[in-house]
Amino acid sequence: MKASIIAVGWEVLMGEVKNTNTDHISSKLRELGVETIFSAVVGDDLDEVSKIISFCVENSDVVFTTGGLGPTPDDLTREAVAKSLCIGLAENSQARQWVEGYFQKTGMSMPQINYVQAMLPDGSEPVWNSLGTAPGVYLEKSGKKIVLLPGPPREMVPMLDAILPRIASPTQKIYSRDFHVYGISEAAMAERIEGLLARKEKPLVAPYASLGHIRLRVWGEYKNEEEFGNALLETEAELKNKLSTHLFSDTIEVELGKILAGKKLTISCAESCTGGLVAKTITDVPGSSGYFMGGCVSYSNQAKVSALGVKPETLEAHGAVSEQTAIEMAEGCARVFGTDCAISTTGIAGPGGGTPDKPVGLVWMGFVWPGGSKTIKRVFGGSRDDVRTRTLMVVLFELAKELR
Amino acid sequence: MKASIIAVGWEVLMGEVKNTNTDHISSKLRELGVETIFSAVVGDDLDEVSKIISFCVENSDVVFTTGGLGPTPDDLTREAVAKSLCIGLAENSQARQWVEGYFQKTGMSMPQINYVQAMLPDGSEPVWNSLGTAPGVYLEKSGKKIVLLPGPPREMVPMLDAILPRIASPTQKIYSRDFHVYGISEAAMAERIEGLLARKEKPLVAPYASLGHIRLRVWGEYKNEEEFGNALLETEAELKNKLSTHLFSDTIEVELGKILAGKKLTISCAESCTGGLVAKTITDVPGSSGYFMGGCVSYSNQAKVSALGVKPETLEAHGAVSEQTAIEMAEGCARVFGTDCAISTTGIAGPGGGTPDKPVGLVWMGFVWPGGSKTIKRVFGGSRDDVRTRTLMVVLFELAKELR
Repeated sequence: MKASIIAVGWEVLMGEVKNTNTDHISSKLRELGVETIFSAVVGDDLDEVSKIISFCVENSDVVFTTGGLGPTPDDLTREAVAKSLCIGLAENSQARQWVEGYFQKTGMSMPQINYVQAMLPDGSEPVWNSLGTAPGVYLEKSGKKIVLLPGPPREMVPMLDAILPRIASPTQKIYSRDFHVYGISEAAMAERIEGLLARKEKPLVAPYASLGHIRLRVWGEYKNEEEFGNALLETEAELKNKLSTHLFSDTIEVELGKILAGKKLTISCAESCTGGLVAKTITDVPGSSGYFMGGCVSYSNQAKVSALGVKPETLEAHGAVSEQTAIEMAEGCARVFGTDCAISTTGIAGPGGGTPDKPVGLVWMGFVWPGGSKTIKRVFGGSRDDVRTRTLMVVLFELAKELR
Repeated sequence: MKASIIAVGWEVLMGEVKNTNTDHISSKLRELGVETIFSAVVGDDLDEVSKIISFCVENSDVVFTTGGLGPTPDDLTREAVAKSLCIGLAENSQARQWVEGYFQKTGMSMPQINYVQAMLPDGSEPVWNSLGTAPGVYLEKSGKKIVLLPGPPREMVPMLDAILPRIASPTQKIYSRDFHVYGISEAAMAERIEGLLARKEKPLVAPYASLGHIRLRVWGEYKNEEEFGNALLETEAELKNKLSTHLFSDTIEVELGKILAGKKLTISCAESCTGGLVAKTITDVPGSSGYFMGGCVSYSNQAKVSALGVKPETLEAHGAVSEQTAIEMAEGCARVFGTDCAISTTGIAGPGGGTPDKPVGLVWMGFVWPGGSKTIKRVFGGSRDDVRTRTLMVVLFELAKELR
């Protein structure tokens, strides 16, 4: 069963009111196994609202609208539905009673214009609204279900809960599990798991790439957690097989933390171009104080010498952005903080500071761990932020790879 | 002229990735006098994407899409456009050159599947993407303009700016200038500038509050920069008068950098609870290497002693989260890095680690500068992230206030 959700109102279309209704409805529908295929936002224009309603009714089984059920002339969702389905509008006595009752209860006199809220498209039923004057509308026509709800979330949410049993009774729910991929481009990953990404039967595998990190979502409709768990086994095995050391169950900072904690290892970091981003990300993880001892942001050459013990000769002979400086930074860092492992970064994040020999984006990374050490060189594209974020992803992945 | 905007991707439709693109495009179009009448979100399904494109092309003059321009099989916006307009797809040599160039520059080998990114609908031109592999697409057909942009905002935003002159040229434009407010709550600020916030004539003043920081946008429609500049004078004077030391022309990390550079002062920072966030934020500013010498993330007590020279007796008598430790961290930091100014943070970011005496959210901050020093204590509410971000805003503001 496929659903569309339409939010009506200039204030939503112009971004002045945040539309939380669409996400709420779509996640509630997902729990029922109903998939939302379109969501739209449209201003308070009769012609445009009725056009998008026609489109959604034609292309899906259930259509929800939010907003445009008030008493003022710009509230025209009821009229737009009637127009797009070529049916009339008539006063509904139950709806009229509710609107009148709302005013009686509050002791206010009812303005004449509120009667329009009882005018419903032919063949529809009103939906009880305990918190406002606008009744909702439920309508079935030619096998399609159409539900009109008011815009304010506090009114909409309980009305949605009341109407959902009319939409579907869930025998199946959508379950999902995320994996995380590092140290490989999206395209290179896609080549390795081409079959999984192209697969049409559940569980489906969907990638979402950001800088230096790809989230892979495995998902599908299942009866319960157990059925999903069983279905997941084979896909997970294939992912592990095809992506091997690039695949993680959680984000790399959490995974690295688990590895360090599991092996009772401590870590510190010495940062130049990342300027604190590596330490900040490691300490984003609650409980990181158990393995992260500290870090040094050695931005100046003097700091590299005084705080980390990088040799002045090294800086003079090879420069701050060099393999030799990177490894001395990592070694010095492990010594200063007394840690088992250390990470270092030194590079040119830009936008200034590049030379033909050492262009913007050049980064040297150093690593030490019990029984090993290495350096990695990369030239990253993109902005200052991009260079810093890509460096972050590489250093966390590369250390995790060695320790795993 | 009427526009529609379509965001393509399951991750957006399912609410997992926040769609900021639609609002951004619609506000940019509004500046040009182009009104957005529909916005839609659709999953990565060829049939559904092409249906909504057909609908939008039929009902508006300009159609923008974001997302679905990547190299993997679920990236099908190019194909969907071709399908909905009943035209073919062919390799565009310019686009091919760009995609190949992207890989050449980074020194990676180009996977075969990336060639699909050079397949454009017949009659279209590629749009240059400086930050990713996906070229955009610009197409005119039967008087309609269709623009395909990639999903990641960092790539989309500059590409949009480049293509907008092809869409419309305005006689009046929206001009705006942002101010930044720190060290005062949104409500307290609103009381001070009540009149400006309630004003109905241009330039309007709109606040946008985030953690510890309020952005004030002054804006209106003007013929040119000069007319706007004149209109701004009075508002700016009133803001300065009412908000005094809380008002800044740029974000606090940029403003602090300007102050330090202007006075030829250097800075370093010693972080415990912020774990590198202060150093990271100071070094977000290009050119910060001119005044930022380095930082120490002294997460463990041992690191506070060995790297910063905090006295073991101080830690024993008062604990790591204390006024005494905070000031010794700042003093030690200025000494180690040889800087004029230093900032320190020590606190309990949570979620664990709180005690009745020292609850989660308690933070001590220390400051030294030429001729002065101080400590500040705060108890912040919110999550681990919130406590860290609020601490960041306070330390940068409080040092800027002393140095200004």
